[in-house]
Amino acid sequence: MSILLENISIIPMTGSADFLEKGYIIIEGQSIKEVGSGLAPVGNHELIIDGTNRAVLPGFINAHTHAAMTFLRSYADDMPLMEWLETKVWPLEDKLTGEDVYWGTMLAITEMIKSGTTCFADMYFFMDEAAQACEKSGIRAVLSRGMVGVGPSADLALSESRELVGKWHRGANNRITMMLGPHAPYTCPPDYLRKVIDLAAELGMALHIHVAETAGEREDMIKTYGKSPVKHLESCGLFERAVLAAHCVHVDEDDIAILKKYQVGVAHNPESNMKLASGIAPVPAMLAAGIPVALGTDGASSNNNLDMLAELRTAAFLHKVNTMDPTVLPAYQALEMATRNGAIALGLKQETGQLKAGMKADMIIMNLEAPHMIPRYDIVANIVYSGQASDVETVIIDGRVIMQDREIIAFDEAEVLEQAKRCAAGLVSR
Amino acid sequence: MSILLENISIIPMTGSADFLEKGYIIIEGQSIKEVGSGLAPVGNHELIIDGTNRAVLPGFINAHTHAAMTFLRSYADDMPLMEWLETKVWPLEDKLTGEDVYWGTMLAITEMIKSGTTCFADMYFFMDEAAQACEKSGIRAVLSRGMVGVGPSADLALSESRELVGKWHRGANNRITMMLGPHAPYTCPPDYLRKVIDLAAELGMALHIHVAETAGEREDMIKTYGKSPVKHLESCGLFERAVLAAHCVHVDEDDIAILKKYQVGVAHNPESNMKLASGIAPVPAMLAAGIPVALGTDGASSNNNLDMLAELRTAAFLHKVNTMDPTVLPAYQALEMATRNGAIALGLKQETGQLKAGMKADMIIMNLEAPHMIPRYDIVANIVYSGQASDVETVIIDGRVIMQDREIIAFDEAEVLEQAKRCAAGLVSR
Repeated sequence: MSILLENISIIPMTGSADFLEKGYIIIEGQSIKEVGSGLAPVGNHELIIDGTNRAVLPGFINAHTHAAMTFLRSYADDMPLMEWLETKVWPLEDKLTGEDVYWGTMLAITEMIKSGTTCFADMYFFMDEAAQACEKSGIRAVLSRGMVGVGPSADLALSESRELVGKWHRGANNRITMMLGPHAPYTCPPDYLRKVIDLAAELGMALHIHVAETAGEREDMIKTYGKSPVKHLESCGLFERAVLAAHCVHVDEDDIAILKKYQVGVAHNPESNMKLASGIAPVPAMLAAGIPVALGTDGASSNNNLDMLAELRTAAFLHKVNTMDPTVLPAYQALEMATRNGAIALGLKQETGQLKAGMKADMIIMNLEAPHMIPRYDIVANIVYSGQASDVETVIIDGRVIMQDREIIAFDEAEVLEQAKRCAAGLVSR
Repeated sequence: MSILLENISIIPMTGSADFLEKGYIIIEGQSIKEVGSGLAPVGNHELIIDGTNRAVLPGFINAHTHAAMTFLRSYADDMPLMEWLETKVWPLEDKLTGEDVYWGTMLAITEMIKSGTTCFADMYFFMDEAAQACEKSGIRAVLSRGMVGVGPSADLALSESRELVGKWHRGANNRITMMLGPHAPYTCPPDYLRKVIDLAAELGMALHIHVAETAGEREDMIKTYGKSPVKHLESCGLFERAVLAAHCVHVDEDDIAILKKYQVGVAHNPESNMKLASGIAPVPAMLAAGIPVALGTDGASSNNNLDMLAELRTAAFLHKVNTMDPTVLPAYQALEMATRNGAIALGLKQETGQLKAGMKADMIIMNLEAPHMIPRYDIVANIVYSGQASDVETVIIDGRVIMQDREIIAFDEAEVLEQAKRCAAGLVSR
């Protein structure tokens, strides 16, 4: 299909000077054919979208979530971490079925599309069902089956992960990429991590892992291994593979040097880290070191939405006040974390995260004609500091229009909401 | 006019146990006649609103803003504070006309209504025009003309304030309340403050003032007067009047005891304090002391939106991570800051901020039928942690429907956007 976007402001995220006040984009098939300034050349297109009073930018990349945890949204909040996990989260998760995960993931994808996310990195279980939801919905995703290296499911996690890679890696028209998902250094002992790393090497996979989320984790790792979580993972050989490391809240200068050395992608989850009172990751220092720090929402149980515009705004604000420097994490850099850096961290920088010829056509059109978006002296600042999820009007993923004028056309949104309500009701009554 | 809301979840903010899963509200004229559980009694109503899959709650009270600063939105961001003020904010403000302030305030009101705010406390200049905007739009407001006690406008500020009180206090069908607005302790020397306090006593007015916004202000006050800003203001006699104190970021235990002693209303502005890197106010300590801490957005130049749902969510998150305690500022308390505490801080607790018989009918209906609002185990948590401005569907102020199904019916929104764009363009080209 050929699509033309015309008369539109373009934020290509290829560099802060590349903003086009008025331009056009031509999409052919799955990819961007041309991005240009001024009027579009004459041509035939099956769909022409007028972008007057609108901006187009790369779709947001949610670099760390647990999509089906939508079913834990508003189930338990404002509780101490361990009590929350032990009395609420884990008991409910124990009851989840594959069907629940399918509809919970569909619910998450629906919310993500309606707030401008075109790609997400997920770690959960029943990942075959999660992959089916990604295939069905048209979203791009990087999926990993969470692996815990202690208890009866340790070996199962390895064999299932191998199966899932075989079935889904580069599946759904190349929209699905698999990673292996060792849950965290404190749930995966070194010998188990070794097995995971070896399997990843055999299959050519990257790894998605939680690292240094809490101060307690860091203390425990130092007590057990005499090393910080990052140093311990280095000594386990984890960084032999490409790694997407979620959180990295409690990292010091040495840890940052290691993350930089191995070009580890970091998924920063400011709202989850705030809500769970985990701490504030040293994001400005990691960015200054040249680490590709991306942004994620984490699961809906600790956020409680999957709204990347809210997340990037929070990130910008949080690091300004935390460093007591209002020039830290300016608007463009915050947007970069949510787009281009996400693509780098997820190993997809050749495919998505920027608007330029040859990249996959993953983009969102935001309506700027709203009271909170006027005046428009600086459209990037408007989007980052004033933008709302509901300003996202049209979503294109892999060259396909998934949502147009806020209506999802790739699947039946009403059905998703009904099925999600049905599954959630069944879940709490089981 | 008589309005019935039926089949609706009710969050009256009269106490956390008072949530009604399904109930009704009857509005007669400007006021709430009845709030009840279950089915409404038979009666005649000019308007009946079905609240299936919806919740009604008191409208948000934005306890501190500079409405017409919408015209500085996205004009200059991510800059050091003094450079920002001296090279950007003040030069542009110098060029503002009364017409600009009228349309800038209308733009702010439009944004506020569309995000569920039914009442706001404003401090700015050209306040006659701001009051006209409030009268025209149907919103409730507490207005103060900013008074700077040095320079040629010091006396003018006093005489204009006297005039404005005469013209607008309890005007617009009682929707407008005036306060006097001494800008801050560092811009109002003690002898000037005395004049303001005396005028306030003569006219029976409360005071709206900025207090302890930055560490620099606190240091300077200690250097100049040997006292913290709060202690200095106490010794100037400021708290002889009811006071709405914006910010209170850099306050210590002694200051908190003083604020409590005089029942000062505090307007906490977390997002502005974060964006300008002013610091983090000790809100949990102030709330624990029994101070009515309300929430404000501050002006759009340092936020950059006027979205109270975003603000209350940020407040809850920020204080959890700042205290490293996830139980701090739970969802209900955050909502209380944005509603009931706002009414207390603005001196309107007999009129607004809660849904109960006899109060003015200021309320918003939020649509819960959206992917980010499912499941709904706890509707307060849904609204506080997942809610979006665009979920606000219907806004009623003073018994009048201002917005219905997201369409503003009290005035012409499109005209406001056009006039605002015209004024902003004129402003930067002058």
